[in-house]
Amino acid sequence: MERLEHASELLELTESQVAALREPVHIAQESLEVMRDDGTKETLPAYRVQFNNARGPYKGGIRFHPAANLDEVKSLAAAMAIKCAVVDIPLGGGKGGVQFNPKEYSRAEIERVARAWARAFAPVIGIDKDIPAPDVYTNAEIMGYMLDEYEKTVGKSEAGMITGKPLALGGIVGRDTATAQGGAYVLDEIVRALDLDPTKLRVAVQGFGNAGFHIARILHGLGYTIVGLSDSKGALMSQTGLDPEAAYRAKHESDVITALYCSGTVCDEERLSRD
Amino acid sequence: MERLEHASELLELTESQVAALREPVHIAQESLEVMRDDGTKETLPAYRVQFNNARGPYKGGIRFHPAANLDEVKSLAAAMAIKCAVVDIPLGGGKGGVQFNPKEYSRAEIERVARAWARAFAPVIGIDKDIPAPDVYTNAEIMGYMLDEYEKTVGKSEAGMITGKPLALGGIVGRDTATAQGGAYVLDEIVRALDLDPTKLRVAVQGFGNAGFHIARILHGLGYTIVGLSDSKGALMSQTGLDPEAAYRAKHESDVITALYCSGTVCDEERLSRD
Amino acid sequence: MERLEHASELLELTESQVAALREPVHIAQESLEVMRDDGTKETLPAYRVQFNNARGPYKGGIRFHPAANLDEVKSLAAAMAIKCAVVDIPLGGGKGGVQFNPKEYSRAEIERVARAWARAFAPVIGIDKDIPAPDVYTNAEIMGYMLDEYEKTVGKSEAGMITGKPLALGGIVGRDTATAQGGAYVLDEIVRALDLDPTKLRVAVQGFGNAGFHIARILHGLGYTIVGLSDSKGALMSQTGLDPEAAYRAKHESDVITALYCSGTVCDEERLSRD
Amino acid sequence: MERLEHASELLELTESQVAALREPVHIAQESLEVMRDDGTKETLPAYRVQFNNARGPYKGGIRFHPAANLDEVKSLAAAMAIKCAVVDIPLGGGKGGVQFNPKEYSRAEIERVARAWARAFAPVIGIDKDIPAPDVYTNAEIMGYMLDEYEKTVGKSEAGMITGKPLALGGIVGRDTATAQGGAYVLDEIVRALDLDPTKLRVAVQGFGNAGFHIARILHGLGYTIVGLSDSKGALMSQTGLDPEAAYRAKHESDVITALYCSGTVCDEERLSRD
Amino acid sequence: MERLEHASELLELTESQVAALREPVHIAQESLEVMRDDGTKETLPAYRVQFNNARGPYKGGIRFHPAANLDEVKSLAAAMAIKCAVVDIPLGGGKGGVQFNPKEYSRAEIERVARAWARAFAPVIGIDKDIPAPDVYTNAEIMGYMLDEYEKTVGKSEAGMITGKPLALGGIVGRDTATAQGGAYVLDEIVRALDLDPTKLRVAVQGFGNAGFHIARILHGLGYTIVGLSDSKGALMSQTGLDPEAAYRAKHESDVITALYCSGTVCDEERLSRD
Amino acid sequence: MERLEHASELLELTESQVAALREPVHIAQESLEVMRDDGTKETLPAYRVQFNNARGPYKGGIRFHPAANLDEVKSLAAAMAIKCAVVDIPLGGGKGGVQFNPKEYSRAEIERVARAWARAFAPVIGIDKDIPAPDVYTNAEIMGYMLDEYEKTVGKSEAGMITGKPLALGGIVGRDTATAQGGAYVLDEIVRALDLDPTKLRVAVQGFGNAGFHIARILHGLGYTIVGLSDSKGALMSQTGLDPEAAYRAKHESDVITALYCSGTVCDEERLSRD
Repeated sequence: MERLEHASELLELTESQVAALREPVHIAQESLEVMRDDGTKETLPAYRVQFNNARGPYKGGIRFHPAANLDEVKSLAAAMAIKCAVVDIPLGGGKGGVQFNPKEYSRAEIERVARAWARAFAPVIGIDKDIPAPDVYTNAEIMGYMLDEYEKTVGKSEAGMITGKPLALGGIVGRDTATAQGGAYVLDEIVRALDLDPTKLRVAVQGFGNAGFHIARILHGLGYTIVGLSDSKGALMSQTGLDPEAAYRAKHESDVITALYCSGTVCDEERLSRD
Repeated sequence: MERLEHASELLELTESQVAALREPVHIAQESLEVMRDDGTKETLPAYRVQFNNARGPYKGGIRFHPAANLDEVKSLAAAMAIKCAVVDIPLGGGKGGVQFNPKEYSRAEIERVARAWARAFAPVIGIDKDIPAPDVYTNAEIMGYMLDEYEKTVGKSEAGMITGKPLALGGIVGRDTATAQGGAYVLDEIVRALDLDPTKLRVAVQGFGNAGFHIARILHGLGYTIVGLSDSKGALMSQTGLDPEAAYRAKHESDVITALYCSGTVCDEERLSRD
Repeated sequence: MERLEHASELLELTESQVAALREPVHIAQESLEVMRDDGTKETLPAYRVQFNNARGPYKGGIRFHPAANLDEVKSLAAAMAIKCAVVDIPLGGGKGGVQFNPKEYSRAEIERVARAWARAFAPVIGIDKDIPAPDVYTNAEIMGYMLDEYEKTVGKSEAGMITGKPLALGGIVGRDTATAQGGAYVLDEIVRALDLDPTKLRVAVQGFGNAGFHIARILHGLGYTIVGLSDSKGALMSQTGLDPEAAYRAKHESDVITALYCSGTVCDEERLSRD
Repeated sequence: MERLEHASELLELTESQVAALREPVHIAQESLEVMRDDGTKETLPAYRVQFNNARGPYKGGIRFHPAANLDEVKSLAAAMAIKCAVVDIPLGGGKGGVQFNPKEYSRAEIERVARAWARAFAPVIGIDKDIPAPDVYTNAEIMGYMLDEYEKTVGKSEAGMITGKPLALGGIVGRDTATAQGGAYVLDEIVRALDLDPTKLRVAVQGFGNAGFHIARILHGLGYTIVGLSDSKGALMSQTGLDPEAAYRAKHESDVITALYCSGTVCDEERLSRD
Repeated sequence: MERLEHASELLELTESQVAALREPVHIAQESLEVMRDDGTKETLPAYRVQFNNARGPYKGGIRFHPAANLDEVKSLAAAMAIKCAVVDIPLGGGKGGVQFNPKEYSRAEIERVARAWARAFAPVIGIDKDIPAPDVYTNAEIMGYMLDEYEKTVGKSEAGMITGKPLALGGIVGRDTATAQGGAYVLDEIVRALDLDPTKLRVAVQGFGNAGFHIARILHGLGYTIVGLSDSKGALMSQTGLDPEAAYRAKHESDVITALYCSGTVCDEERLSRD
Repeated sequence: MERLEHASELLELTESQVAALREPVHIAQESLEVMRDDGTKETLPAYRVQFNNARGPYKGGIRFHPAANLDEVKSLAAAMAIKCAVVDIPLGGGKGGVQFNPKEYSRAEIERVARAWARAFAPVIGIDKDIPAPDVYTNAEIMGYMLDEYEKTVGKSEAGMITGKPLALGGIVGRDTATAQGGAYVLDEIVRALDLDPTKLRVAVQGFGNAGFHIARILHGLGYTIVGLSDSKGALMSQTGLDPEAAYRAKHESDVITALYCSGTVCDEERLSRD
């Protein structure tokens, strides 16, 4: 907020222009009633913040996280609006979430949460209104449930209402490595601008889920030396360089190492789907 | 919240039933862009909380107040849901508001706020969805603007989408004195139950807007002795009894007394419209 | 228009208020493509003028007449708005028409015109938008076709979208004699106010279709002496009084007399349906 | 069909009129995907036949029965159209069903079937389109689930979209005994027309669910002697007369007798809800 | 069905997966009321089966045939779903039809059938719901009527709601020869795979309507020797080869030969439009 | 009309075909209530004529002009239908307007007129219904207001509902010079066909707003000699040739010359936006 005020002074924005950067156009909060596998019903708070659509339909992910709340989702939605504008995509900014801990829910329960979200927010989303995407602890499979539920609710096919969906439902090739690839492109530009030699650079990657593994793999392929890899459960280090694909296999194939990171298969999958 | 937990223990409610009493089904927050008379634009946060509609369309007022915020509107919406259920009306509970100080706005500006509210929330209100009403600093005139704007937005006549509207637009006779009349009926029942004699009872009324004046007038007519009248600007007291109609005339007709209460005619009208 | 200006001066109306009395809110004109019985297609201009709906849904008849045009329909729609307001019915004013000569069309062709009208204007009519009725050369049967076509177009039952429909489709008893009955009530009030004796009054009725026959019949029953009856083809006169029912039977049952009035059965029916 | 042809010859109906009595206007069949309590998914064929709505919205029950199929539902829908017309109610005729055996499903599973039905057919039902009701093996509780699901799907309150719902959701008093009461009225008229003495008549009732129990109780109250009661599991007979209320209590309260009829509580409830 | 069970065993499909291959998601049957040229009205049963839309909007033709019924249309819809999936087009499978013999109807009557179909099924078809196409005894002209009627019903332009329409209404070049061309491509691949020489192959074509004529013409152009041509009325044979274009001209231009095939011009046209 | 009859005789058109060229499919007229800057309200007649959409959505500009009326707009809509057909664009023809003098309105007032137009006609326009564009005294800025108001009214993003909008809202590069460029292409084709030498041709341009300036500039660049330039306020002439860019700068930058043309900056801008 302080930075916003400072920026608006520098840019000599009117009060009305500042207001458009300070508050979302529309906020919707719904109570999702979800059946647990034991037949009991729970009510989870769910959000969709639509910050600004002057440049096109709202766009932004949906996170499933115990710490998701209205304030967090609002600030993330504002960031999406600015990110889309900065790279000149004809989309606005939005963000959504459900406040619960998916690690404590079965796959069937998570499907029910996803379907409940899509149904509750169906009136305000869609290809020409607001286009969700995966975010923290949501992945292509969850986008697929949301798409299916949305289409059933509105009674028509509309695959473009969500991104990050499975290939079989109209997703695009490369979506899973896109975050890492984007980071690699940016790094590449910086290295070129600074006139550095990639083969002489040493890289440590923090986080070894979807984004972390792929950027390590891509940079390794470009000649960078990967000297460190870490995730929330431990770290690997080697001055002569690590092979990210071998590390990835070790993490997922070896029972021993997997056991270090995570107590079940759900957890492994969620980690891979982090966006 | 504490009381809710206590009550739910006494009633042995399930977790799902408590959740329905704790959180609203749907919350919508909009940024209303309103033009001031000087041509500048302002953005005002506006709310509609739809607490529960298991028993029928949501029902509840809209307040224009600088202290209106999401928390206040939520708790008022919950109260509406319970009030409607207690008296067995087939309606649910809702509440709305706009966070601004109407005393600092001209009548034309307030009309624009009212129209902006109706237009922004048109998709979620209506005779079979959610039926607003006047509340703090909103009155029949404002309901009329909202009705007109709503009908223009949805393209049909639907006078039943709002209550507390002017008689000429389909409002009902007696709406302006209904709050006071209701209070009088309740008091009457209590007095009867306690076997008291109204003519020997002394009454002081706090607040002398729409509700305060009318209940004083009604009780005076029933033989109660009105010994005190007050509003936010002053008070009258008489051990032998006051005539509420005379006091009302004095407040509104005498320039001197009016000046005590309020700096302009807008303010007087708003005071009269308090619900 | 002159009278409007004069009236608005007397009433000190604002320019905006006068404008609302001068121009309709909405005018729609459609080209109806209708198949003749010989398989050729014709295009007929059709209108719906919606003058004012501040007091409720637009209300007014649909005429089938070669002289129906936008100007005529506009002035009739304005008159409807004022008529509804004067008698304090919560309805606005509208009027519609199709420019063609129904006397030159078969019953099946007229059904197709009626259905084409209902389908073309379906988006702007309905129980909460605009409620048509019979007018010159349209009758209960035609309202029935319009109701059926409208319901098929919008996909729901909505008998209240039109008045003057057949009893079997939800019409009300007494609709066919309502115009005459209304005239009789008005006359009765005048006679009472002037303290006259009906049995000493002599009445001549101009027009002997639906309205003319029924008012003659009603007044005859109230003791008035009916000394003259006429329609576009001839007249009857008797100083000692005529029996309207006998005259009606003579007009319709006797081939000779019917032939005087009209060349075919269609024509007879249309005459009966004049409103 | 033979009878239809015979009748149409007697009435000299046109081919088009016979067609309207032979085939429904609209048939919809949906595959309902329903989750069993063990997490597996089943697909059940579901129907809604809308026979004729010339007189008003379609009206007719929904049955849950393993033998429900398109042919049965079609003929029942035709019967509804004729029944409503005969008693001059402004409603058309429809009927629906789901082909499965509710006796093999838990209450939670039946709720899911009911909700799936309401959601699948939501586009073609509603207060002004088609108004369902309970039928074989469906009851007020199931109507309540359908109403709730329909309202969630269309996003508005519309209690009138279904009849036979619980009192708390807007159902009408007397609905549970209406079938029996109607039968009693008809019998009463016949007895009166034949000039018989009820107190000398002996009655045996076949079926002892909702309709059977109540008509036995009502006739008993009117002085008829109830000499026989039977249901699908057994029969009671007494030349001196039975007390239906005592029999009903015995059937439901006594473990021994209940065990004769049914293996669980679900079954008992279904029996009570037969229409 | 047997083959489906066998296949599902081989593929180890779950019961729910088999169900999705066994029954359509949605079936709609309507009674189309159509006016004959003599003014009488007929009621024709019409169908649209929507088998599966998991991969995209339903897609499939509409046939006008006296033998069209629900069972036939269901199995054809299932085939469409599988065909679209096999060639990986993002469309599902559907099929429709009207049960009547178009050879006994005039062109104007067939237009009315086509328009009645489009209007009756308008709520369930559309570019994002279900996209019809020509099939047995329906052609580009009929698709044009359906498109026009659909657009009038929904009130917007949506040329993509149907395929196989006339070029002037947005149809694509090559649609009329596409079936034949597709067959030629497949044959060509087989011939190539078997290492055969087209110029040494002899071809007999069964059927000489749209598909038969064009494949004969295309293969003739590729060097195949066309030794036989036949349709439902006769056959031509020549060991040295036939010229398909000459045969086509002879069939359509010579009165004598035309007379052999067909008793009127309607019939000729229908033959050409077979898909 | 005479020419239409002559043409239809030459082309041997049917009566129905002529009718489609004579009368629009749909005409809508609305009364726009607009607030002036001084707080008073005015009512302006506004039009949208939809001539023919057989080939695709209606397409045509909106003019703000005191002489705009239904007859003018109808004939311009007809011209649009024919123009789109002649150049084989899959669009129909329409035209709209508001009858008022924009030179007497402030920029804020004109914004309110534009928004009122978009809101009043929102039900009949849209990317698949009718696509407006700038015309006399309307420009990209006004299209931007209309787009924004339309999107707010329908609740979705739909930039394609209008053309001639600002680049930032999805407009296309080159739209501002398109009219002039088109004229230059046509002239170029004629010159080529007549085998003339552009460098020897002398050009005088009548009108020096958007179209006039750009065609002068383009032709000048192609080697034509610009000997005359004029607008409604004066003219420039030079046998040796004028530089259009210099003339344009002189007109807009020099106070003296600008004063000749126009009394204020609003007027200059409007002139530039003429289409």
